[in-house]
Amino acid sequence: MITVGIVGGTGYTGVELLRLLLRHPNVNVKILTSRTEAGRRVDEMFPSLRGHTDLEFSDLKIEALQKCDVVFFATPHGVAMNHAADLLSAGTKVIDLAADFRLQDLEQFEKWYGLEHACPEILKQSVYGLCELNREKIKQAQVIGNPGCYPTTVQLGLAPLLQASELLLKPESIIIDAKSGVSGAGRKASLGMIYSENADNFKAYGVAGHRHHPEIVEALGHISAHQANFESLIFVPHLVPMIRGMLSTIYVDLTEHAKAVDLQKLYQDFYQGEHFVDVMPAGSSPETRSVRGANQLRIALHQIQANKLIVLVAQDNLVKGAAGQAIQNMNLMFNFSEDAGLQGIGLLP
Amino acid sequence: MITVGIVGGTGYTGVELLRLLLRHPNVNVKILTSRTEAGRRVDEMFPSLRGHTDLEFSDLKIEALQKCDVVFFATPHGVAMNHAADLLSAGTKVIDLAADFRLQDLEQFEKWYGLEHACPEILKQSVYGLCELNREKIKQAQVIGNPGCYPTTVQLGLAPLLQASELLLKPESIIIDAKSGVSGAGRKASLGMIYSENADNFKAYGVAGHRHHPEIVEALGHISAHQANFESLIFVPHLVPMIRGMLSTIYVDLTEHAKAVDLQKLYQDFYQGEHFVDVMPAGSSPETRSVRGANQLRIALHQIQANKLIVLVAQDNLVKGAAGQAIQNMNLMFNFSEDAGLQGIGLLP
Amino acid sequence: MITVGIVGGTGYTGVELLRLLLRHPNVNVKILTSRTEAGRRVDEMFPSLRGHTDLEFSDLKIEALQKCDVVFFATPHGVAMNHAADLLSAGTKVIDLAADFRLQDLEQFEKWYGLEHACPEILKQSVYGLCELNREKIKQAQVIGNPGCYPTTVQLGLAPLLQASELLLKPESIIIDAKSGVSGAGRKASLGMIYSENADNFKAYGVAGHRHHPEIVEALGHISAHQANFESLIFVPHLVPMIRGMLSTIYVDLTEHAKAVDLQKLYQDFYQGEHFVDVMPAGSSPETRSVRGANQLRIALHQIQANKLIVLVAQDNLVKGAAGQAIQNMNLMFNFSEDAGLQGIGLLP
Amino acid sequence: MITVGIVGGTGYTGVELLRLLLRHPNVNVKILTSRTEAGRRVDEMFPSLRGHTDLEFSDLKIEALQKCDVVFFATPHGVAMNHAADLLSAGTKVIDLAADFRLQDLEQFEKWYGLEHACPEILKQSVYGLCELNREKIKQAQVIGNPGCYPTTVQLGLAPLLQASELLLKPESIIIDAKSGVSGAGRKASLGMIYSENADNFKAYGVAGHRHHPEIVEALGHISAHQANFESLIFVPHLVPMIRGMLSTIYVDLTEHAKAVDLQKLYQDFYQGEHFVDVMPAGSSPETRSVRGANQLRIALHQIQANKLIVLVAQDNLVKGAAGQAIQNMNLMFNFSEDAGLQGIGLLP
Repeated sequence: MITVGIVGGTGYTGVELLRLLLRHPNVNVKILTSRTEAGRRVDEMFPSLRGHTDLEFSDLKIEALQKCDVVFFATPHGVAMNHAADLLSAGTKVIDLAADFRLQDLEQFEKWYGLEHACPEILKQSVYGLCELNREKIKQAQVIGNPGCYPTTVQLGLAPLLQASELLLKPESIIIDAKSGVSGAGRKASLGMIYSENADNFKAYGVAGHRHHPEIVEALGHISAHQANFESLIFVPHLVPMIRGMLSTIYVDLTEHAKAVDLQKLYQDFYQGEHFVDVMPAGSSPETRSVRGANQLRIALHQIQANKLIVLVAQDNLVKGAAGQAIQNMNLMFNFSEDAGLQGIGLLP
Repeated sequence: MITVGIVGGTGYTGVELLRLLLRHPNVNVKILTSRTEAGRRVDEMFPSLRGHTDLEFSDLKIEALQKCDVVFFATPHGVAMNHAADLLSAGTKVIDLAADFRLQDLEQFEKWYGLEHACPEILKQSVYGLCELNREKIKQAQVIGNPGCYPTTVQLGLAPLLQASELLLKPESIIIDAKSGVSGAGRKASLGMIYSENADNFKAYGVAGHRHHPEIVEALGHISAHQANFESLIFVPHLVPMIRGMLSTIYVDLTEHAKAVDLQKLYQDFYQGEHFVDVMPAGSSPETRSVRGANQLRIALHQIQANKLIVLVAQDNLVKGAAGQAIQNMNLMFNFSEDAGLQGIGLLP
Repeated sequence: MITVGIVGGTGYTGVELLRLLLRHPNVNVKILTSRTEAGRRVDEMFPSLRGHTDLEFSDLKIEALQKCDVVFFATPHGVAMNHAADLLSAGTKVIDLAADFRLQDLEQFEKWYGLEHACPEILKQSVYGLCELNREKIKQAQVIGNPGCYPTTVQLGLAPLLQASELLLKPESIIIDAKSGVSGAGRKASLGMIYSENADNFKAYGVAGHRHHPEIVEALGHISAHQANFESLIFVPHLVPMIRGMLSTIYVDLTEHAKAVDLQKLYQDFYQGEHFVDVMPAGSSPETRSVRGANQLRIALHQIQANKLIVLVAQDNLVKGAAGQAIQNMNLMFNFSEDAGLQGIGLLP
Repeated sequence: MITVGIVGGTGYTGVELLRLLLRHPNVNVKILTSRTEAGRRVDEMFPSLRGHTDLEFSDLKIEALQKCDVVFFATPHGVAMNHAADLLSAGTKVIDLAADFRLQDLEQFEKWYGLEHACPEILKQSVYGLCELNREKIKQAQVIGNPGCYPTTVQLGLAPLLQASELLLKPESIIIDAKSGVSGAGRKASLGMIYSENADNFKAYGVAGHRHHPEIVEALGHISAHQANFESLIFVPHLVPMIRGMLSTIYVDLTEHAKAVDLQKLYQDFYQGEHFVDVMPAGSSPETRSVRGANQLRIALHQIQANKLIVLVAQDNLVKGAAGQAIQNMNLMFNFSEDAGLQGIGLLP
């Protein structure tokens, strides 16, 4: 059993971490902080937890967190980087669900998040926590930048093409038309998020620029075995009137090299043995509800013309796109079974 | 053509007034105020209005409003009462969609709204704007208190029983189990109203006490032809994951007098000729979507035991429950056809 | 490990049984029947199960089922009663999620379900599977009638009042205003159930009579310690535009005996130690989302007048109202921990 | 006043035609046919129409329809083509909301709809009813093929680029990622359309091929001033958990010619004076709710790289995408004001 702290427990990734960690066989959640709710029982705010925990929110005290084996930051961007050094010095590992340890490019970080990075040295040692592509490094990591939800779908959706012996897609052709449920925007009192503004409605947002764009560009560059440049890819997110779920529809032009390749087989082989990535039969249409509440990502390929491929990728933005993936990282870091606490089946209907 | 001002145009009743008034044949909307949005085009905030108006929000200036024939207050409680005297003195009529002129009982008003009433004398002369029950007074009124959404359903749902020659129901038996769409709570940035907190969810609220309770009690007292006391009625509102719509399920014990009465015929006769109250065939189940966007209220009776009656009442909370009824009041006050601007058919599906 | 068969695996209770049983530590699901889908993989129909099972639907073969320790019937009414004798003779226990073993009154069964009962003798020995109220009998049972979803909320919502040393409520005063998500109507291709007919809409249904009415009447009679008659209770179900979830708002008049009783304490004591019944603090408002996907029922009391009590009861209609409760019964019958396989936390948001 | 018949009044386009035509100042709806509901009042099936019509469904009788000035077919594909000759011979005009008169290419029609065309000669004379691009021909037409919902968004979204003096986009680069509310699939009792299968869910469908694909290809070919070939465009529709609304996100590569062109101005000039096409300010994000219930289509441009353009197009699939556009065609054919009966403002919220 390890002891776990969660900083920032009043948001949706916080309560999702609790939902999963309170049933994790190797974990004891000891601390849950909140600036505004210290002293209040967490099950008073989230009645779904009644009967499962007596935890109360507490103020963030670094000495208390230093006694944990690992601390999750389910906070806004810019919090984890201010506490990472103190925690590491005490031997406490850090998993940040925000963006502080996602981008290695400091300029991009400052441009998109409006923050100077507080610990560039730690950032350099941190590991980008996309488990399927980075497993060995994660096992050794002290600090994890848990990937953004959209970037998770894009990287897992394109990795087999990018890591083949020959580059199979044209980087400049990539178009990602992505759709997310509303919980992706977090638990905040803002006019744009209220029910009557979002129900029975559909729209694009962030077309002119979204923080996940530079993360996707940098991450695909790291994944690619072929020194490709992904700066001109197009990424357009949309908002779906549903609570959870994310679907990315990715359009790519294939290279000549792809002609000789059975792409369906390529993907199946690439993800052979993975617990949480499901390559569906060619021509399938993954539905977001098939992964509701589950740490699962499903991929389906549609090669509709000789040189055109559509990759459909579905996940639950709060699980494989956030809290579930963070726990998957923790499992790797502590040498637990990778699927410990993550075996739940999606809620359908 | 009359000139109209709207105070408080950024909420849902404000934009609903605009949707209806911009197509009203006898109305010219001249002024639309907002404390926070002065100078901004209204169709920038509500793109549904693009192509239908060039109005901009302006600061509330009483001199400008005094030039209008009528001013609607689509504001929080406590605004209209501070401006009514100035408007009346200039001959401008007032229709308040908030609660300032709903309760004649000042103690109740102060208890439930936490405000001392600013103009008790005007309150005395004001008229409660439930058109079907108060038509003649409304035609002469200078100030209208537009009824609350829940109270509208209850009064129209019970009036035929209360105004029969003998009292047909037992006042102390009344139970109102009411359900409303989320737009009834207005357009406010509050955590409790965000999409992910309300979608795919159902709950009761305000069980211990809701502001519409005293309004229902007072209004039923006025309607009743039999000096009955309604203080012990039970009213429990619930929140439905839909944008618009309200259904009240009203349970009453019938008196002995009711045995000789054909209640279905009683209701049909009572509402004979009304544009906006539809008595459906006995045993029907009015759906809220049948009135979506329409100034229409539908009633169905279920007499399930000799002395037990269930009255189902459906309306769109923003139309017959708010903006539509306010315009119906205006039509009466200015001697327009009562259904002018209110003939739209509900949006189904 | 016991072996389990499920008859009728293509409906929502079927797939929900699978979601829970596939992760149950003591269970091996061997057989899943479907008249129409025999030979098809179940995860092809329900992709949420991909990676969790290789089961295929098969035709119903009684010899195969007889080799199971227990068979669940997730079928329409009238199926289980035709196979119960064959299964019992082989020592296989039966849990019926339909109505075949819910009503002891054969006349009522035939009246409401239009079927002559196929095995009245077995019906007599069957046990009504409301675990919290019937635990000892269930442990010995060979055949379980799993309660209807609405009746579960009413019985657990009123049992403490009915089993107190003095009768605390007036049976003839009971009004149950119940609301259910759409999944309660099952997985059937019918016009009334399609998305565009149900979204953004609210309505009552079955006001003139619903099959759960006689079940509630009979069951309350059994629960009551005071020979009371419940035939005149009123039960009105409504349809909520959400997938899962059920809330019953129950209104009762209290007797004089209640004056001396702390009802909140009565309920807390009554359900002390129960895993799946949560008595919330007085004045709470249980939300359906707090139990989404969980085998949990939450109760809150509102005593709004000296002699008037409102009981709010929330559950997930597919879990505590159907598949979860069925598994809870199985756990009792096979002497497993009562919460085995049922410890999942509700999905919020 | 003209007399109007509607064939097939029980679907969503049928009831939407009624909603709009019953308030149209120049129209008298005389006949409404249904194979299955003959003799039933239409407001019994669609209670939203109570108080607005006494129409009953009738059997399809060609002699009766021949007395109408115009007949709308709100039927499945393949019905209108069997009655067009009879109606035209009597001087009755025909507006088909299905696909019988959309595709001039008979091979494509037979391939995608599985039907041999019943009246190829009439097809040749028929006019494709996209009013903004085909207005003069429509005014003279006897038979109109009302465009499909998706094709409407694509054509109006790309027409300014295709009809500029130089071709401004690369036809082979077009990718249409389209999203529709569930009502687009019609009012049919099918398992895939029920509430619990669609709510809180998102998915692509018809990726391998959708009937609107050939219509888009043919129609863009007609619109283009430059003999371009559009066969390799990509069209992927998705299903959104909302009743009404459609958003197409269209990605195109621009040609060198586009460098010298102010695209925003090009679009604004192109649609100058159009009632029903709204070019929003550059960088806007049209929401489907801004056109809910309105015959309105909104376009916004995002030129995110020198040679990359994203066109966002929103409409209500049942109005501008079906019934509203059909009435707009009728208005043109009978020389009514083009916006007669179509001036309603979108329902927001």
